[in-house]
Amino acid sequence: MSITTPGGFRAAGVAAGLKASGGSDVALVVNDGPLKHAAAVFTTNRVAAAPVLWSRQVVSDGRVDAVVLNSGGANACTGPEGFANTHRTAEVTADLLGVSAADVFVCSTGLIGEQLPMDKLLAGVSEAAGNLSSGGGPAAAEAIMTTDTVSKEARYPASPDTASEGYSIGGMAKGAGMLAPGLATMLVVLTTDAVLPPAQLDAALRAAVRVSFDRTDADGCMSTNDTVVLLASGASGATPDPDQFTSALTGLCLDLASQLITDAEGASHTIAITTVRAASEADAETVGRAVARSNLFKTAIFGNDPNWGRVLAAVGTTDAAFEPDRLNVSMNGVQICRNGGIGDSRDLVDLSGREVTVEIDLAAGTASATIWTNDLTHEYVHENSAYSS
Amino acid sequence: MSITTPGGFRAAGVAAGLKASGGSDVALVVNDGPLKHAAAVFTTNRVAAAPVLWSRQVVSDGRVDAVVLNSGGANACTGPEGFANTHRTAEVTADLLGVSAADVFVCSTGLIGEQLPMDKLLAGVSEAAGNLSSGGGPAAAEAIMTTDTVSKEARYPASPDTASEGYSIGGMAKGAGMLAPGLATMLVVLTTDAVLPPAQLDAALRAAVRVSFDRTDADGCMSTNDTVVLLASGASGATPDPDQFTSALTGLCLDLASQLITDAEGASHTIAITTVRAASEADAETVGRAVARSNLFKTAIFGNDPNWGRVLAAVGTTDAAFEPDRLNVSMNGVQICRNGGIGDSRDLVDLSGREVTVEIDLAAGTASATIWTNDLTHEYVHENSAYSS
Repeated sequence: MSITTPGGFRAAGVAAGLKASGGSDVALVVNDGPLKHAAAVFTTNRVAAAPVLWSRQVVSDGRVDAVVLNSGGANACTGPEGFANTHRTAEVTADLLGVSAADVFVCSTGLIGEQLPMDKLLAGVSEAAGNLSSGGGPAAAEAIMTTDTVSKEARYPASPDTASEGYSIGGMAKGAGMLAPGLATMLVVLTTDAVLPPAQLDAALRAAVRVSFDRTDADGCMSTNDTVVLLASGASGATPDPDQFTSALTGLCLDLASQLITDAEGASHTIAITTVRAASEADAETVGRAVARSNLFKTAIFGNDPNWGRVLAAVGTTDAAFEPDRLNVSMNGVQICRNGGIGDSRDLVDLSGREVTVEIDLAAGTASATIWTNDLTHEYVHENSAYSS
Repeated sequence: MSITTPGGFRAAGVAAGLKASGGSDVALVVNDGPLKHAAAVFTTNRVAAAPVLWSRQVVSDGRVDAVVLNSGGANACTGPEGFANTHRTAEVTADLLGVSAADVFVCSTGLIGEQLPMDKLLAGVSEAAGNLSSGGGPAAAEAIMTTDTVSKEARYPASPDTASEGYSIGGMAKGAGMLAPGLATMLVVLTTDAVLPPAQLDAALRAAVRVSFDRTDADGCMSTNDTVVLLASGASGATPDPDQFTSALTGLCLDLASQLITDAEGASHTIAITTVRAASEADAETVGRAVARSNLFKTAIFGNDPNWGRVLAAVGTTDAAFEPDRLNVSMNGVQICRNGGIGDSRDLVDLSGREVTVEIDLAAGTASATIWTNDLTHEYVHENSAYSS
């Protein structure tokens, strides 16, 4: 059920004192091979954190030997000193593992604009290197949490009994706020023991991320630190069909994305917005994202109010192909807006449960896409006004 | 201090029973001339309300004789029946005033997706027509309120004693939620007794709106009903210099915009985000708007937290010209981010007052722009989860 499920990986998570809470805050993931293949995607935010700048270079040759991650500090907007600290973290990790610093991928998450306490961090890395084990995945998943209330892990195949293709995939994720377009803070580590070259890993990762994490939008805010990295050890000896691998990886990413949105800060509803009969998949995605970012829509759902007018007001801000008088909107299966006007009674919509489905019918084509989001609640305001992140 | 300050205008506001509260909800503004010149700007939302569709046609010839407005129902997403109701409202108003329905401008605000109770509305219009007076401006301003806590009015010159150019301008506005780009719901009526042709009114109105209402962004949500209409009676006989008139009108629009943002739903801080040294005014506006729409930034300000990291994270999502390591950010005069990194201590920033100024220095040019917004509070979530609008 974790990143150490696939063969060839060891991990650890320790408490280094970066978090005021005293919780674990440094994680280490090591690929013991025989392959050290990797691919990664990063935030598109132009204000990128030091570890993002570093790790982009590390993965550019398709090889990553280890990933070192910390919570309790994002190391973003920290200038040359911040970059030197990321570099130093990679060097110390490399020395401890006997690998090259140029193959050590670094991720950080937490408050922006503060330097990391390097003494504590490096002592933690040293302790983590001493604790590495093939059962260490869950401890690593714990150590990357910030405002997450639970750790997030997933595996393929879903259970060890499931007939598989001879390889497995594991994953861990963190992220609660700042989940947004082009990713979130949101750190995700994926591991597999499949035999795949870096180019195929990269193609599979981009395909999986495009329809999972990239369509998860909790609060429209884009982080400086978002990273998803995929490591392949080849330890299974199995060489999967690329399409089958991409499909398996996509399923696992959707699982993790669903865990992220369910644990989004303060959320009381998990909302799937599916746009159908769009002229293109891009149109469907644009429409879903516009609704997912409407604070008025999100507060209405918090109030169990099937306010389809706010859905249409958001749809109307987009440049997607549609005619206003042909729009249909359903919530939890009730078509409350028909042909751009009043449909079935709002009173038929029950929003008391956790899961909400919104279907927007553009009547303009055959494409569709789903965006996952959550409601805007008092608890979100409380967490983000009280917590400096 | 109102739309009846300029000569040539009468107004009224009455309670027609559209609002559950029993408050006044129908307003009527009549231009007695001698000129009946007008210009207007509307929401760019493609899902536009019936009164917007109607009034766009009415003003297209530059003539408006009267404006009839109602709160208690937006008449948006109401299909052919909704459009017929707007048409009927204009016809009844025209009959009462002895003018052409094609010169009666209609505005509505309130819940989307419900038909207006036409019996009540038309009875209210009849009552308002009987109550018209040259002192009726304040009553009209009251009647267009929805979640506004106070009515909003402004005049030029600021006091009757001020030396003027021989003409005056009056204005009223409503709007608390949905204040956004390309306007808000937000209805604004402006009146002047200056002698100006429709084309000059239109140019002045667009110039004034561009730097006032269009830069007011309370919650990023764009309404289906936003309208700003300017009526000129020519009753003063004064023909102002177009630039002087535009300047006076802009000042009055900024005054009303400031009143709108100060009364934004649940706000506890009024925030002016000024972007300086931008490569273009468009860049400055884009950057300010990105920050104004960051829920993480807005909740931080609610918590009196000078969280400049969230400012940079928002700036980084834009395509404005800048280098991350040259960005500076000040809050309330303290430069807490310098060269993209840590500046003066956060502890020096006092956010306990109502007014917050954020200055973002892009170090990329000489242009600047200010966007006005407010914080995201528990009260915003409460109002918008409990109130169906």
